[in-house]
Amino acid sequence: MADTDTKWVYSFGADDSDGSAEMRNLLGGKGANLAEMSNLGLPVPPGFTITTEVCTYYYDHGETYPGELDAQVEAALRAIETSVGAGFGDSSNPLLVSVRSGARASMPGMMDTVLNLGLNDETVEGLAEKSGDARFAFDSYRRFIQMYSDVVLGVDHYLFEEVLEQHKTDNGLILDTDLADDDWKAVVAAYKKIVEDELGKPFPQDPREQLWGAIGAVFGSWMNQRAMTYRRLHGIPAEWGTAVNVQAMVFGNMGDDCATGVAFTRDPSTGENIFYGEYLVNAQGEDVVAGIRTPQHLTIAGKERNGSDLPSMEEVMPEVFKQLADVRQTLEAHYKDMQDIEFTVQQNKLYMLQTRSGKRTAGAAIRIAVEMVSEGLISEADAVTRVGQLDQLLHPRLDPDAPRNVLSRGLPASPGAASGKIVLSADLAEDMAQRGEKVILVRIETSPEDIHGMHAAQGILTTRGGMTSHAAVVARGMGRPCVAGAGDISVDYSNGEVRVGGRTLKAGDQLTIDGATGEVIEGEVPTIDPEMSGDFATLMSWADSIRRLKVRTNAETPVDAATAREFGAEGIGLCRTEHMFFDPERIVAVRRMILAEDVAGRREALAELLPYQRQDFVELFRIMGGLPVTIRLLDPPLHEFLPKSDEEIAEVAKLAGRDPKAMTDRAVQLHEANPMLGHRGCRLGITYPEIYEMQARAIFEAALTVSGGNDVSVFPEIMIPLAATKRELDILKERIDAVAEAVFEERDARLEYHVGTMIELPRAALRAGDLAKTAEFFSFGTNDLTQTTFGISRDDASGFLSEYERYGIVETDPFVSIDIDGVGELVSIAAERGRTTREDIKLGICGEHGGDPASVKFCESVDLDYVSCSPYRVPIARLAAAQAVVEQGKT
Amino acid sequence: MADTDTKWVYSFGADDSDGSAEMRNLLGGKGANLAEMSNLGLPVPPGFTITTEVCTYYYDHGETYPGELDAQVEAALRAIETSVGAGFGDSSNPLLVSVRSGARASMPGMMDTVLNLGLNDETVEGLAEKSGDARFAFDSYRRFIQMYSDVVLGVDHYLFEEVLEQHKTDNGLILDTDLADDDWKAVVAAYKKIVEDELGKPFPQDPREQLWGAIGAVFGSWMNQRAMTYRRLHGIPAEWGTAVNVQAMVFGNMGDDCATGVAFTRDPSTGENIFYGEYLVNAQGEDVVAGIRTPQHLTIAGKERNGSDLPSMEEVMPEVFKQLADVRQTLEAHYKDMQDIEFTVQQNKLYMLQTRSGKRTAGAAIRIAVEMVSEGLISEADAVTRVGQLDQLLHPRLDPDAPRNVLSRGLPASPGAASGKIVLSADLAEDMAQRGEKVILVRIETSPEDIHGMHAAQGILTTRGGMTSHAAVVARGMGRPCVAGAGDISVDYSNGEVRVGGRTLKAGDQLTIDGATGEVIEGEVPTIDPEMSGDFATLMSWADSIRRLKVRTNAETPVDAATAREFGAEGIGLCRTEHMFFDPERIVAVRRMILAEDVAGRREALAELLPYQRQDFVELFRIMGGLPVTIRLLDPPLHEFLPKSDEEIAEVAKLAGRDPKAMTDRAVQLHEANPMLGHRGCRLGITYPEIYEMQARAIFEAALTVSGGNDVSVFPEIMIPLAATKRELDILKERIDAVAEAVFEERDARLEYHVGTMIELPRAALRAGDLAKTAEFFSFGTNDLTQTTFGISRDDASGFLSEYERYGIVETDPFVSIDIDGVGELVSIAAERGRTTREDIKLGICGEHGGDPASVKFCESVDLDYVSCSPYRVPIARLAAAQAVVEQGKT
Repeated sequence: MADTDTKWVYSFGADDSDGSAEMRNLLGGKGANLAEMSNLGLPVPPGFTITTEVCTYYYDHGETYPGELDAQVEAALRAIETSVGAGFGDSSNPLLVSVRSGARASMPGMMDTVLNLGLNDETVEGLAEKSGDARFAFDSYRRFIQMYSDVVLGVDHYLFEEVLEQHKTDNGLILDTDLADDDWKAVVAAYKKIVEDELGKPFPQDPREQLWGAIGAVFGSWMNQRAMTYRRLHGIPAEWGTAVNVQAMVFGNMGDDCATGVAFTRDPSTGENIFYGEYLVNAQGEDVVAGIRTPQHLTIAGKERNGSDLPSMEEVMPEVFKQLADVRQTLEAHYKDMQDIEFTVQQNKLYMLQTRSGKRTAGAAIRIAVEMVSEGLISEADAVTRVGQLDQLLHPRLDPDAPRNVLSRGLPASPGAASGKIVLSADLAEDMAQRGEKVILVRIETSPEDIHGMHAAQGILTTRGGMTSHAAVVARGMGRPCVAGAGDISVDYSNGEVRVGGRTLKAGDQLTIDGATGEVIEGEVPTIDPEMSGDFATLMSWADSIRRLKVRTNAETPVDAATAREFGAEGIGLCRTEHMFFDPERIVAVRRMILAEDVAGRREALAELLPYQRQDFVELFRIMGGLPVTIRLLDPPLHEFLPKSDEEIAEVAKLAGRDPKAMTDRAVQLHEANPMLGHRGCRLGITYPEIYEMQARAIFEAALTVSGGNDVSVFPEIMIPLAATKRELDILKERIDAVAEAVFEERDARLEYHVGTMIELPRAALRAGDLAKTAEFFSFGTNDLTQTTFGISRDDASGFLSEYERYGIVETDPFVSIDIDGVGELVSIAAERGRTTREDIKLGICGEHGGDPASVKFCESVDLDYVSCSPYRVPIARLAAAQAVVEQGKT
Repeated sequence: MADTDTKWVYSFGADDSDGSAEMRNLLGGKGANLAEMSNLGLPVPPGFTITTEVCTYYYDHGETYPGELDAQVEAALRAIETSVGAGFGDSSNPLLVSVRSGARASMPGMMDTVLNLGLNDETVEGLAEKSGDARFAFDSYRRFIQMYSDVVLGVDHYLFEEVLEQHKTDNGLILDTDLADDDWKAVVAAYKKIVEDELGKPFPQDPREQLWGAIGAVFGSWMNQRAMTYRRLHGIPAEWGTAVNVQAMVFGNMGDDCATGVAFTRDPSTGENIFYGEYLVNAQGEDVVAGIRTPQHLTIAGKERNGSDLPSMEEVMPEVFKQLADVRQTLEAHYKDMQDIEFTVQQNKLYMLQTRSGKRTAGAAIRIAVEMVSEGLISEADAVTRVGQLDQLLHPRLDPDAPRNVLSRGLPASPGAASGKIVLSADLAEDMAQRGEKVILVRIETSPEDIHGMHAAQGILTTRGGMTSHAAVVARGMGRPCVAGAGDISVDYSNGEVRVGGRTLKAGDQLTIDGATGEVIEGEVPTIDPEMSGDFATLMSWADSIRRLKVRTNAETPVDAATAREFGAEGIGLCRTEHMFFDPERIVAVRRMILAEDVAGRREALAELLPYQRQDFVELFRIMGGLPVTIRLLDPPLHEFLPKSDEEIAEVAKLAGRDPKAMTDRAVQLHEANPMLGHRGCRLGITYPEIYEMQARAIFEAALTVSGGNDVSVFPEIMIPLAATKRELDILKERIDAVAEAVFEERDARLEYHVGTMIELPRAALRAGDLAKTAEFFSFGTNDLTQTTFGISRDDASGFLSEYERYGIVETDPFVSIDIDGVGELVSIAAERGRTTREDIKLGICGEHGGDPASVKFCESVDLDYVSCSPYRVPIARLAAAQAVVEQGKT
C-alpha cells in the first residue's frame, strides 16, 4: 500500500502547512483543522501530524512503523524547532510538545493527550531559567510525569494523587496554588520513585524515547477494548485508523499575561449570534475543564448577562480579545458553521489550539441555520441539513428552572412531559378526562383494551416493559409522553396505591413524568410548550420546498388526524381499523362477532359495528378533505379482542347472552403458538368474507356521505394487510369492488378509490411484480417485514436484542432504524419489481420507521412516494426527507 | 393470432392423418393419440379433431368461432362419410358420430362424451333398417337423447331415469335388456316430451344443429366452475384450451359378433408382462364401466388366474383377439410404455378408440421400468423417470387379503402399518418396548417429552392435530406409522380407556393403524414387509449412477442413523442435538441448566450433560464412519424444555432441589409471544456461551475418540442455527475454534472440521455473500425459511391453510413442497451469493423438503450439493435426484 516515497508526516503552523481541512481522512479531524487554521493565517503553534495511514500500516505489519517514518518525524521536529527557536531536549532552551490522537470522527475511549513532553531532569531546569519561574517549570514536569505515566506507561493515576495529597497534608497546604517550587520538586522526586517502583525502571529521560512512547500509545489505544466497542457501536471501520498530532507547547500558565479558554462562535444553547465562552488567567487548558477555579466570561455582555463579578477577557486583555474576536469571524466565514474553539494566550500572544463544528441544542441548531441563511453564509438547502433531532422541540418539556423531586427513573419511552392525577384504570382515566381533569395513567403494563384510557390521559407510566412494549409503541403513536418499565415503582391496584422507595402515593395525587429522560417526579412541574412558529416554521418551509417525499400520518382518531394536519401531514398513510374496535361501546359487538357460530351470526354482529365504523371514517375523511386516506382492513388475530380474565369473560358472556364456557372454548380454539405468523391480516379477510365486506361498506358509505355535495374531495385507499400472493388480492379486490358497486348503486353516486396492499412479508416483496398486477399501491409495513426478515418477534426481542447491540451484532435496533442491508434490499426489490409491472404504482412506508430520519433517507434513496408516521413525528419526517434530497445530491 | 390459412381441423383414421402424438398441445391428448394410432396403421374409426386454438379463439372473441371453421368441419365430415360410406343425416344410411372433449392433460369436470350423434326421427329408422335391428336403433336413439339433453341442453338426467323406471314398472319389465323395440319407441317419445316440456322447444332433429350444439358444449365446459377449480389446483393455464374430437360411431352392441372392452398392456397392479383386461359381448363402452354385467377376462390365463367361469375373449373371438394382441405389441413398441386402451368390436371388426399411458401402482411402475430396460425398450435413464411415489413401498403395509374391522379413520399422517397393544403414556410405551412388547402409543396429542415413547412404539395414534402436528412431523421423521387427528376417538387417560363409536378399548388391547390410509382397525392385522431387493434395488442402482446430488439423512439416534445408511444415506445432514435433551435421564440436568441463576450454575448442569452428548456423537460418528456428519447446535427456545403441568413442575423441582415457585417464575419469564421468532437458535448461543461450548466439546471429544487409532474417518460439520448476520457467526466460530484447540491440546490429536450455518431467515439468504466469509457450508432450513418468508407459523397454519388450498391461493402446502417462486428465489439468491464469496462452499438442504421429490428437483436446478431427509425418505430423494438430472437434460 505504501511505496518509499509515501509522505507519512504533514507539518502545520508557522508559515506553511502541508495539509488542509479536506484531508480529514488522512490527517484526522484535529490535524486537518490545525492545518486549515494555519492556512487561514491564524496563530497556530507549529507541529506535525502523523497520518492515519501509519496507523493502518502499523496494524498490517505486526505493529511496526514504515522505515521512512523516523526520518520524516525528525525533519518535522526540526521544522518546529526552527519555527519556535528552541531545541527538543535542549537543556537550556527546551522545546516542549503535546501529543494528541485525532481520528476522522471524534472517538472517546482512545488515548487523548500528553502535555509538556520533552521535560526531564535537565530540561526542567532550562525551562525554569528561560521562563524565570521555577514553580511553573516543576509544576509542568510533575504534570507531565503523571500524565505520561498514566496514559503511556500504564501506572495508575491514583498513586500520584495520593502522594500529592500526602505532601499537602504533611505541609499544611490546601490548594495546588499553595505549593511553591520546592514543594513541586519534592513531588517530582516522589513521582519518579513511584514510576521506578511500579515498572522496575526509571521514568524515561530521553525526550525522543518519550515521544515515540507517546506515539506508540496513541496507535495502541486505537485497538483497546473501549475504542473497539465504540467503533462497533458507531459503525466506524477499524481500517480508518487514527492520526497523531505533535505540536509545540504554548503555556497559558506562565503568569498573568497568560490565559487559556474555550469558546463557541455562537451561543450553543440558544443559537444567538453572540461570542460565547470562558477563560482563565494563568492556567492550562485542563484547568478550565476541571472546574477548580471559576472560569470567567469572554465578553462584557456575557459577564453581565450571567451576573458575574469576575472581569471578562474583553476587559482584562482587550487587545488579545480583539484578535480572538477576529478569529471568530474568520472561522465562521470560512467554515460557514458555528465553531467550538480552544485557545491559549502565552505572554499576551494568542494561539489557536483547536477548532471544530460545535455541538448545539436542537433549538440553537434551528436558529443558527436560519440566521446564517439571512447572513448569506449558507443556502437554505445547507440550513436544512444542519438540524438534527427535532424530537425535543415537538413536545412540551419541563421548565428547566423549576425544582423537581425525582422519585424514580424508567425508560424514556415516548418524549414530552406531562403532569396529572394518578389514575390506575383506563376507564377511570377516560371518565376523569371527560370531567376536564388531567390524569397520568399508571399501569403495570398496558394492553389494547387500555387504548381509550391512554388517549384520555396526559401521559402514561408503566412499571414493566421496554422501549417496544405496548405502552411505548402506542404512546409514541399517539404523541403521549410515556415512561415505561419503571421497575422501582410498584402498583397496587386493589388498594389504589403506587409505592416507590418507601413512599406511597394514592390515586388522585399529582405526578409528573418526563418521557424524554424517563424521570418520574412528585407533584406538578411547570412545562414549556413547543414553539412551532418563527425560525422553526421558516426552516420547515425550506424543507418542504426541497423535499420530494410526501409525508403522511398514521392516525385512527379525529384528534390524531387533526394534530397531524397541523404538523403538516399530507394525508393518512395508515388507519388501523382495529383500533376502532376496542372502544368499550363496540367491543361487545366485536366479541359477539368472533363468538358467532355461523356466518349469519357474524353478519348480525357486524351490522351493529357498521354505523360506528362509518362514523369513524366520516370524521377522518372530513379532517383529511382533499388528501388521500389509506385504510387498512382488519389485521390482528381475532383472539386479541377476547377478554383474558375469568371475570371479564363472565361479564362479556352475560352482555353477549352467551355461556362463559363457550367463550372460553372459543378463546382456546383461537389460541395460536405464534400469533404474529398466524390467522391474521388478509387471511381473516379470506376466511371470514363478511368482516372485510362490512369494513368496505363503511368506507364507501362514509366517503359518499362526505363527498356528497360538500365540495370535499375524498380519496379512499383500501389496504389489504399481510398478502403473500396475488391470488389473495384478486379474491379480496373482487369482493371489495362488488361492495363498492352495491353502495354506488344504492346511493346513486360514485367515486374513485384504490385497492392496494401492504408489503410486510419477504414473499410479498419478492413477488411484488405479480402483486402489482392487482394492487394499485404498496405500503411497506416495515415493522412486520423486519420481524419476518430477521425472524425476530418484536414482543420477544428484549430477551436478547440489548445483548446483540452490546456485541455489535446489530448497530441500532432494527425496529427503530430500518435494516438497510436486509429489510432494505427487500424494499428495494419490491419497489423495482412493482414499478416494472405498474409504472405509476404508488409506494409508501408506514410503521415506526416512517418517522425515523435514517429510515426516511433510505426511503428517498429508493424513490418511494411517501412516508407515513405518527402525528408528532411528521415534522421530523418532513425535515429528514429534505435532508435526504440534499445529501443524496438530488437538489 | 390466426390468419385465414389457419388449419383449425385435423382429420384422422382411414388412410391418412393430419396429426401425430407430438401435436398434443394442439390436438389434446386424445386427439393426438387417435392420429398417432392411425399413423401406425391401427384400425381407428375415422374422425377429426377441432384444435385447442379454436378454444382460445372462442374465448378471445366473445365466444364466437373463426370464420373458416365451418367449412373445415364440413370438409372433414365429408371425409368421414367417404371413408365409412354413410351420410351424416342420410335417412337411409346415416353416419353417426361421437363428440368428445380432449385437453392437453386429462381434466375431470369438463363435458366428456356424447355418443350416437346424428340420430333423429328419420335416421333412427334408417339405422334400424341398415342394422336389421330396430331394438338396437331405438335403444341408441334414447341413449343419445338422454345424453345430449343432459350435457348439451342441461336437462336433468333423473327426469329421463324416472320415465324409464315408470315404463318398466308399468309393463312388468326388470332389466333394460327386457325392453323390446316398441318399448324403446315409447321411451323415445316420452324422452322427447320431457325435453320439449323443459326447454319449450323440441329436441333438435337437425344433425348439424346437434353437432354444433355438442361442440359448443365442449368449449363451454372449459370455463365451468369445476374445470376452473381443477385447473387452478393443478396449475393448468386457461390459455391451453381444449380440443374437440368428432369420430364415426362404431357399435359394440349390434349383436354377439360385437364387443367392447378396456385393457392394459401389462398388469397395472403388479407390473407383470401379461395382457390384462376385460370385455363384454354385445355392449357399449359405458356398460363395461357401469358394472351392470360382469365383465369377462381377455385372456385364458387371466380367466384361470381369477377363477372365472365366463369365457375369455381369446376363446370367444380368437381372430379378433389375435389382432388386439398384435395391437398391444405395436403400441408398447411404439410408445415404449405400458398403455391403457379402449376398443370396440363391431361385427367381428376391431376398432381402437383410445390409447394412453396407463396408471399403475408404485410396485408395478418399478417392475415395468426394469423389465422394459431388459427388453431393450427404454434406457436406464428413462426407467428412472417412470417411477413416482415410492412411499408405499418403503413401509410395511397391511395384507390386502386380511379381514379388517375399521373402527375409525383419521389423517394418514405418516405411512406404514403397525399393530400393537394400546398404551397411553410415553414412559409406559418405552417400558413395554424394552420388555419386547409391541405397542401403539395413543395420545390426544404429543409433545417433545413424548419422543422416547414415540420411538419405542410401533405406531402413533392421536385424536387431535393435523398433518403438520407434532405427532405427524416427528413420526414421519422417525419413519413410524402415524394416524393423526382421529376426532371420533376419545382418550380417557385416568381410566386407561379409548372410546370409539360406542365401543371401549382398554390399554393393552390390540390395535392396528394404517398410516397410509388413516384407518384405525381393531385387533391385529397381518402386514407385508417392504421389499428392498430385486427390481427396486436395480432401479435404485441406476438412479445412483445418474444423480449428482448427494443424499444425507436427518438423524439423532443410532437406530435412525443405521436405518438411513441401509437406505443409502451418504452422511448426516441434520443432527438436532436438542432431541438428545429430552431423554428422561437428561431432562433434569437440562432443566437445572435453564433454572440456574448464574453462569457457574449453568456450567455445573452442562458438565453433567457432557458425557451423554459425547456418547451420542461417538455412536453417530461410528455408524457414519467415513461420511460427513452435520451437527446443529441447540436450536429451540429454552422454555420448550420446561415442564408444563403443576405436578411435573413439583416433581422436577424436587429432583433439581429447587423451589417449584422459582421454576414457575422462570417459566413465566421465558414465556414468549412468538417463540418461533424469539430467543432461540444462535441467539441462545450468543447469550449463553457455555451451552454451545459444552456441545462443541462433546463433538470434538467424540470425534477424537472415534477417529483415534480406529481407522475410522470422522468429518464433523458444526452448524449454527438461525443466523441473521455475519457477526453472530464470527463470535460463535471463534468460541468453537477455541474449544477445538483446547480439546486438541488435551488429547494431543487434531482433526479437520467445518463450521457452517443454516440459512433459515430471509435476511440470512440476502446476506449470504457476507455470511459465507465465515461459514464454510450452508444448509437451507427450508421449514423455518418457509415460515418466515410466508409469515406463516406451521403450528397455526391449520386455521386457514386448507381454505387457502381450496381457494387455489396455494397449490400445495408450502411446508410439504417448496414454494419455488418465493422461498425458492431466496435459496437461489443465497446459493449464488454464497458461491461468489466462497467458490467451494458446500450447499445442502435439510428439513422435510429434502424428502419431497418436487423440492429435490428444485435443489438440483440450483445446483445444491446435497439434500438431507428423514431415513425412510432417503430412497425417494435418491430417485428424485436422478429424475431431476434426466428431466433437466443434465445427463
